[in-house]
Amino acid sequence: MEPEPFAAIRWEGDLAGHALVLDQTKLPGETVWLEVRTLEEMRDAIRRLAVRGAPAIGVAAAYGLVLGLRGQSGVDRAEFLGRAREAAAVLARARPTAVNLAWALERLLARAAREPEPRALLAEAEAVAREDREACQRLGELGAALLPARGTLLTHCNAGALATAGIGTALAPIYVAARAGKRLHVYVDETRPLWQGARLTAWELARASIQVTLITDSMAGSVLQSGGVDAVLVGADRIARNGDCANKIGTYPLAVLAARHGVPFYVFAPLSTFDPDCASGEEIPIEERAPEEVSAPWGRPLAPPGVGVFNPAFDVTPAELVRAIVTEKGLIERPDETRVVAALRRAGRLA
Amino acid sequence: MEPEPFAAIRWEGDLAGHALVLDQTKLPGETVWLEVRTLEEMRDAIRRLAVRGAPAIGVAAAYGLVLGLRGQSGVDRAEFLGRAREAAAVLARARPTAVNLAWALERLLARAAREPEPRALLAEAEAVAREDREACQRLGELGAALLPARGTLLTHCNAGALATAGIGTALAPIYVAARAGKRLHVYVDETRPLWQGARLTAWELARASIQVTLITDSMAGSVLQSGGVDAVLVGADRIARNGDCANKIGTYPLAVLAARHGVPFYVFAPLSTFDPDCASGEEIPIEERAPEEVSAPWGRPLAPPGVGVFNPAFDVTPAELVRAIVTEKGLIERPDETRVVAALRRAGRLA
Repeated sequence: MEPEPFAAIRWEGDLAGHALVLDQTKLPGETVWLEVRTLEEMRDAIRRLAVRGAPAIGVAAAYGLVLGLRGQSGVDRAEFLGRAREAAAVLARARPTAVNLAWALERLLARAAREPEPRALLAEAEAVAREDREACQRLGELGAALLPARGTLLTHCNAGALATAGIGTALAPIYVAARAGKRLHVYVDETRPLWQGARLTAWELARASIQVTLITDSMAGSVLQSGGVDAVLVGADRIARNGDCANKIGTYPLAVLAARHGVPFYVFAPLSTFDPDCASGEEIPIEERAPEEVSAPWGRPLAPPGVGVFNPAFDVTPAELVRAIVTEKGLIERPDETRVVAALRRAGRLA
Repeated sequence: MEPEPFAAIRWEGDLAGHALVLDQTKLPGETVWLEVRTLEEMRDAIRRLAVRGAPAIGVAAAYGLVLGLRGQSGVDRAEFLGRAREAAAVLARARPTAVNLAWALERLLARAAREPEPRALLAEAEAVAREDREACQRLGELGAALLPARGTLLTHCNAGALATAGIGTALAPIYVAARAGKRLHVYVDETRPLWQGARLTAWELARASIQVTLITDSMAGSVLQSGGVDAVLVGADRIARNGDCANKIGTYPLAVLAARHGVPFYVFAPLSTFDPDCASGEEIPIEERAPEEVSAPWGRPLAPPGVGVFNPAFDVTPAELVRAIVTEKGLIERPDETRVVAALRRAGRLA
């Protein structure tokens, strides 16, 4: 049971080194590692989902900024900061919904303001990655306590080791619980249009010897209706101040179904996924992606030519449907603005 | 606006003729018509979904029985009936959920008992097809009256001309309303695992110049949440005496979402889709199909080898979530056992 070797992203070597990214577009057929050496390569890796998952793209953006600035040793502070802001803007535009990306870049820019040196940026990026690994571990421990000794779970998309620098967010409790001897069976939504559930979650859970049953997204209703599911576990890409959670498209229907069947719906996310500037889910920008992801997967046209397509990559689950948001600093049970704000204040993410 | 030329199934010629089946596994890329000349060919066409849709497979089974019996002219009544029952059993096993198949076979067997002659069976099969066409037209007229002059609808799978001998069940009102000048925009769920929405519904609606937007099944939640949908229209494969409706997998989640958002959820089905012998949805057999439909569409493996798959082809929507079942004899509003039984009695389908 070693998901860690498949951590989506890590840094190799010193400042002259490179980021190592597991190309998730090739899984599960091929295990291809990309050596990413420039800011532009990192932006492209994020954009084409070679690296994906909110915490992982936060780490990726941090390393991307290091790659963009590593030639700027010894330059004037104002110039260094100006270049850092330009580089951050390029990376921030790569994907709009996951706030971890903007959060990590802000953190590196703050460090640059204090220490305008590439070496300091790498140290900060490494801290982002290390803290993400630690947060994952803590999410796993807190989440495992919520799971029965024998039970059946349902998850969507990939909120696992592949989505983070550590053991994942929503899958972390499954790994921790399994290590502690709990026997879990996990239904995995395939997660159209890009099949992250089928390709990534089924792959990493199966490697860890967790019992997996793959279903299409449309089958989760039957599975929940059958009464055998103990909890639904998902990740998040951005959480608003009122507890509304943006996550992979298809999460919201799951939350509605879980509520109907009295099954607890848990969101697992590090505090870096919260956006205190977003009052509610309505303010979260939802990325729309290319129509061909829906109408012609792998270039094979399914639909007749010219048919319109709507392809939002995320949806928003209202806080009222969430039993608890599990963070590395504890649970926010039945989240609402008061509870989320209190948690963010305790964690120093809000004044 | 001529969906009729694409009617899934019809008979060509006299008793020496053949059934003509549009091979729906090839759409929308190719338009291939199959000349079906034996019972076994028809069973296989039903099983591999060359012809699908509850009313269409009722008609297909009827023609299949004609094909199996057409050599039996002038034989002894008991022998004719015995052979007819054997042939019906072969066809009935082809697919278990849609009750129209069993209903059509029962109807032909009753005719055979009165008139043990192939020619009578063909006449009865032609009557089944003709009545299905008429029922579709009536569903369309009754349904069109429920639709706004300008509006947005959402549908799942294919309950169109391709699923019937006529203009469809859930799509019939769209055709009738469009012909009457109503301007409709239809969101179509792609309908994993076999993409009947993307391949069939988008194709037939686009040919009829109806505005279509294709989405993955997981996007229906966002579309309904956005508030722009006036009604959800679906077909059915079997309706129990209490109004519970079995339909393509993914229908139940749509009904739950529609209820949450106050959007009326309409089921369109001819009376042949009702099963008076099923007390509730729990008694409806749910077909499970090959795991590869989920894990390796078109032979391309998505998931790692050996991962378990659950692949139910249908789910059951409880009657309480259905605003009305639209039949050719009128609406059953807010269906329950009393209302369904009353409607079946009026129609002579229940004593």
